[in-house]
Amino acid sequence: MKNNIVRVCYTPALYPLYMEDDCIVVIVDVLRATSAICTALQHGVTEIIPVASIEEALAYQGDTYIHAAERGGEIVAGFHYGNSPLTYLNNPGIQGKKLVLTTTNGTQAIAAAKGHGIIAIGAFSNISALTTWLGQQKKDVMILCSGWKNRYNLEDSLFAGALTDRLIGNGFDYDIDSDAAIGAQTIYKAAQHDLYDFLRFSSHRTRLEKLNLDEDVRYCLQLDTAQVVPVLTGDILMNVA
Amino acid sequence: MKNNIVRVCYTPALYPLYMEDDCIVVIVDVLRATSAICTALQHGVTEIIPVASIEEALAYQGDTYIHAAERGGEIVAGFHYGNSPLTYLNNPGIQGKKLVLTTTNGTQAIAAAKGHGIIAIGAFSNISALTTWLGQQKKDVMILCSGWKNRYNLEDSLFAGALTDRLIGNGFDYDIDSDAAIGAQTIYKAAQHDLYDFLRFSSHRTRLEKLNLDEDVRYCLQLDTAQVVPVLTGDILMNVA
Repeated sequence: MKNNIVRVCYTPALYPLYMEDDCIVVIVDVLRATSAICTALQHGVTEIIPVASIEEALAYQGDTYIHAAERGGEIVAGFHYGNSPLTYLNNPGIQGKKLVLTTTNGTQAIAAAKGHGIIAIGAFSNISALTTWLGQQKKDVMILCSGWKNRYNLEDSLFAGALTDRLIGNGFDYDIDSDAAIGAQTIYKAAQHDLYDFLRFSSHRTRLEKLNLDEDVRYCLQLDTAQVVPVLTGDILMNVA
Repeated sequence: MKNNIVRVCYTPALYPLYMEDDCIVVIVDVLRATSAICTALQHGVTEIIPVASIEEALAYQGDTYIHAAERGGEIVAGFHYGNSPLTYLNNPGIQGKKLVLTTTNGTQAIAAAKGHGIIAIGAFSNISALTTWLGQQKKDVMILCSGWKNRYNLEDSLFAGALTDRLIGNGFDYDIDSDAAIGAQTIYKAAQHDLYDFLRFSSHRTRLEKLNLDEDVRYCLQLDTAQVVPVLTGDILMNVA
């Protein structure tokens, strides 16, 4: 029997060159959308509706919905939530709610991948739960990094490398066109002993530090703070773990 | 005085997102176009005319021209040369000739970058000569990897990392949006003790091995086999070292 394959794509801009139909696409936006999604589902939100635009977010009205919108690292004016995972910890206001979420990069990547395979959400927050679940699905895996405005970014590549490393260790194979997966895995192996320190010169850690969001960065780099696997069904992300 | 900046872009498909006008763009296609360009100029070719298409290559006729065309790793039928650097070593047929060259990825990257800044050619073959010359120019540097059909590839990223590492060591700074440069440098540092072994699972080394071009791969990974800096003037690459 052929082993399943793990592939990596560094930005949504390149995704049309890497796209495969029959696979699971793991969307990654470590700082901070996919980390926030895992945290919110772990701590009381029942489902998440990712949308690409502010307008689409506001179309969801009613007591069951809460709204989160982030652009350029900051909460959009008029919204209660952004994509800080810490705001979803120990928060009575989110219990049993449906979260409508739009962010600079993460929800754009979800939009780019829609219609091609099964879409799941990955972050250091849920890496072990995700690895276990991916191993059970018997499908190829495409790790799609959100990047920063379609550019390559370090934190998503780092996570892509961490997940590649675990999947290869669990019997997945590289693709014949595997260079991005090997590159990401090499970076992860060089950085794994101190992810936070490795990112000290990265553009987005610098950006978030200027916004006093360093605690968010540290939280997003912790492993296994959530035992959830968010998967898109229709327009909704639900925990399938 | 502000230090000059070094940036990296992993594929021509992303170049519009990274493009800067006032800089030196170093085009990289380690396997094998830019290695072949350096080798040909080192060993007797007087100038190189890179063109994107077979048709453009054939438009140059006359005794002073020789023609090289490669697609998918192989010499195009009817052409004498491809992009194997070894064919330009100790070859009386190339002495004093002008080489018209079209390749799968390398010359496409040159075409993508034309009109924006000064275009230079980089490979492990000329890394020291190139580093010295770049240090003298007092300009920012953009390292543009050719990739493989617009995808990320390992060997060009490896060279981008090697050149970044030398330029940072010589007083260049990272950009504020420096993630690709740091990623490439991290990979290079992990691989530098055995570049050939590091590339064993890479897609293009595998592709070239199937074509019995392993000796080419080994040659392209040798440092400083050429003391040339090919720079584009008009439509022509000339050695300015």
